Amino acid sequence: MFVRRIIICFCLVAAAQIHAQSTVSKEDKAQLKKIYDTALLEGNSYQWLDHLSNQIGARLSGSLNAQKAVEWGKAELEKLRLDKVWLQPVMVPKWTRGVTEFAYIETEPGKSTNVPICALGGSVPTPIGGLKAPLIEIKSLEALEKLGRKAIEGKIVFYNRPMQADLINTFEAYGGCVDQRYAGAAAAAKYGAVGVLVRSLTLRSDDLPHTGAMSYGDLKDSEKIPAAAISTNGADLLSSMLKLNPNIKFHINMNCRTWEDVESFNVIGEIKGSEFPDKYMVVGGHLDSWDLGDGSHDDGAGIVQSMEVLRLFKKIGYQPKHSIRVVMFMNEENGLRGGKKYAKIATQKNEDHVFALESDSGGFTPRGFSFDCTDATFNKVLSWKPLFEPYLIHYFVKGGSGADIGPLKKDTNVLAGLRPDSQRYFDYHHAKNDTFDAVNKRELELGAATMTSLVYLFDKYGIE
Amino acid sequence: MFVRRIIICFCLVAAAQIHAQSTVSKEDKAQLKKIYDTALLEGNSYQWLDHLSNQIGARLSGSLNAQKAVEWGKAELEKLRLDKVWLQPVMVPKWTRGVTEFAYIETEPGKSTNVPICALGGSVPTPIGGLKAPLIEIKSLEALEKLGRKAIEGKIVFYNRPMQADLINTFEAYGGCVDQRYAGAAAAAKYGAVGVLVRSLTLRSDDLPHTGAMSYGDLKDSEKIPAAAISTNGADLLSSMLKLNPNIKFHINMNCRTWEDVESFNVIGEIKGSEFPDKYMVVGGHLDSWDLGDGSHDDGAGIVQSMEVLRLFKKIGYQPKHSIRVVMFMNEENGLRGGKKYAKIATQKNEDHVFALESDSGGFTPRGFSFDCTDATFNKVLSWKPLFEPYLIHYFVKGGSGADIGPLKKDTNVLAGLRPDSQRYFDYHHAKNDTFDAVNKRELELGAATMTSLVYLFDKYGIE
Repeated sequence: MFVRRIIICFCLVAAAQIHAQSTVSKEDKAQLKKIYDTALLEGNSYQWLDHLSNQIGARLSGSLNAQKAVEWGKAELEKLRLDKVWLQPVMVPKWTRGVTEFAYIETEPGKSTNVPICALGGSVPTPIGGLKAPLIEIKSLEALEKLGRKAIEGKIVFYNRPMQADLINTFEAYGGCVDQRYAGAAAAAKYGAVGVLVRSLTLRSDDLPHTGAMSYGDLKDSEKIPAAAISTNGADLLSSMLKLNPNIKFHINMNCRTWEDVESFNVIGEIKGSEFPDKYMVVGGHLDSWDLGDGSHDDGAGIVQSMEVLRLFKKIGYQPKHSIRVVMFMNEENGLRGGKKYAKIATQKNEDHVFALESDSGGFTPRGFSFDCTDATFNKVLSWKPLFEPYLIHYFVKGGSGADIGPLKKDTNVLAGLRPDSQRYFDYHHAKNDTFDAVNKRELELGAATMTSLVYLFDKYGIE
Repeated sequence: MFVRRIIICFCLVAAAQIHAQSTVSKEDKAQLKKIYDTALLEGNSYQWLDHLSNQIGARLSGSLNAQKAVEWGKAELEKLRLDKVWLQPVMVPKWTRGVTEFAYIETEPGKSTNVPICALGGSVPTPIGGLKAPLIEIKSLEALEKLGRKAIEGKIVFYNRPMQADLINTFEAYGGCVDQRYAGAAAAAKYGAVGVLVRSLTLRSDDLPHTGAMSYGDLKDSEKIPAAAISTNGADLLSSMLKLNPNIKFHINMNCRTWEDVESFNVIGEIKGSEFPDKYMVVGGHLDSWDLGDGSHDDGAGIVQSMEVLRLFKKIGYQPKHSIRVVMFMNEENGLRGGKKYAKIATQKNEDHVFALESDSGGFTPRGFSFDCTDATFNKVLSWKPLFEPYLIHYFVKGGSGADIGPLKKDTNVLAGLRPDSQRYFDYHHAKNDTFDAVNKRELELGAATMTSLVYLFDKYGIE
């Protein structure tokens, strides 16, 4: 009985394998080869990124550079002779860093050590002349309650829980720490803290502070306290000094500011589908970036790879059955307004979005994709694995796609995220070294080809 | 009948899968986790590489730095409290670059354009005052015969076949071009060429010449001609200028020199096996490097990863059954004398080397291994694949291991090579940017853990 069940089970497995084999047609093999060859030999993603990073640069939502990037994106898509290119207006937050921040540790009056900091995105400024207060170092938001108001009041809360180095996927390590940056100020303010300092979210030991979004939650304006990131080396130094003398003070100077919302745009281009023009497939990334580097990995890479998907289809002469859109989302970093607006308009217009793919994990060697979809669809994807093997794409997992396309989620559609090698991503993430030279041409191009291949397969075989 | 055969076939596949499952024990899972955790949380490979690259630096065979590296390697192994550490003498070639080379394109007397070049390792110098001659550009060694002596005599042969960008594995692209560098001078000299200039073996467009080994084959000393590499940008410029004017001349100045062989050493450390002390397993890389960068990827990474294998065994308290040796081979780059000597002594002493693993493909994110072994052993390795999955190690192929361990090959043993992501390797290979800052700590550590895991499994389960 047991043996017989095993045999039956094997036959099912085997049947699944036959099915898998059968879907790997010679035509698909050839088409993927054409896509990869074209991306590597006649690609344009790297040249686009060169312009976006080096001629435009950092493009924080609401900035002049963000507007330049919108205009550039539209002009480049128009050159591709797509069926339609347009701008979709969206109101976005405008926050400016102001004069470069500075901070120092004061062991006694007149005796100080400078440390590298930067304001977190959305932070209020320090008072003119700066903020000076003693510190309390903690490892989690939960520690606030244990310590209680008395221990925290009047102090700068120093969140110093490092990213976990033994996690292979660095995004997991990030996910395990980002609450300190995002929600640390709101939580500490409730206990009377006068500011927060957060250990930079990177696995490197270096001198670069990493910015990123934070939220004050339901705090009133008068309750908001300044929030800054400190470099990992700075955090380690500060922690050592606090052990020697818990009474040292910390001085922070920041004059960042939040302004009225301003109008910006999602940039959209479309190739009309030959069989299902009313069914939409989206590829995208976000056009905005933080303001410290030039946003080459986050998310210039995703933008140019998404543009390249449509360019490669044109170049290899593939006419998609579904309408394929590239969307350059605005304001992923500090608001997600672009992603929300795009989904809202899609709902209003009753546009059926059957598939969306985002690239927002850096321009590193692609390893595979994550999928937010049904088991049936995921099994279909797994049947395509052999097609990707020659390109060393091996990582197909369920769970997670991308922030910008998230609002498009329905029970019936498929969202996916490109998953590049994650080891170096947080070396650059939201820091001033996220620049063009940190992107390798071939790795970027392989990512674009991998995305194009997945879109090709979903377009050809449909959803479910 | 057909269906029945298919079912039988499936049952065999399924049986293999069951077997595969059964070998993935909880104990092995836990052991691999311990290895990876320790490498990432308490690793020492990056700190070792920092010293080797930044405190010692480039270490061409026969140089003072190579000797410093030997002494450092021995001292560091001794600190690990292995059962035995020793130096194995080996005579190595000594070649020096001399004064920095220079070259220019001369369109007419007094009108010239500088281009970046470097001598190939082993080249003879130019005459004092330099070599100036017209050029002939070709794409292959075979083109020499077609052109014939008349077209080549008195000229500098300019080999300009670029690496193929559409190959996913960049080592394949390298393999398809390296004949120009290695054998180009010997071939051209036979047709009366006075020098050769070789397009640098990299997929990047940049200004760095990449050196590397070359051979004059059976040429007499008097027949040898100078051989240099030119940067890819320089090669493209030169090619364009030749199209405009085939009569332009090229000037090269090099005063490199080959000296008498000198004594150097392989550095060896050993943990004695508890069950099979007379069966040896080797992990290694090469301690020598080229002289332009500091050899961090080639092959400082392989050296420190190999050291780390033994250190991790000690650290996690694993006592191997077989005798495990780390071998820092000398002179891989321009002679392979260390690898040959090690194998010769092993044969003389009748030491049974059952397994050897080399890391000499850079310190990038590990993807898997290549194996030179029987099908039976390879199938056993494939049964371990699930163990490596959590670490995103997915690439297990037959064919190729490493140059230094090659001479150890027998019918019955297993040779293997670590296969890191190859996209960026040739950006740095043999050029002055192969430096410590190009190595990522986590990627290096993951490679060391991956090697340690494979050695652990072979040690535990044996060969065959």
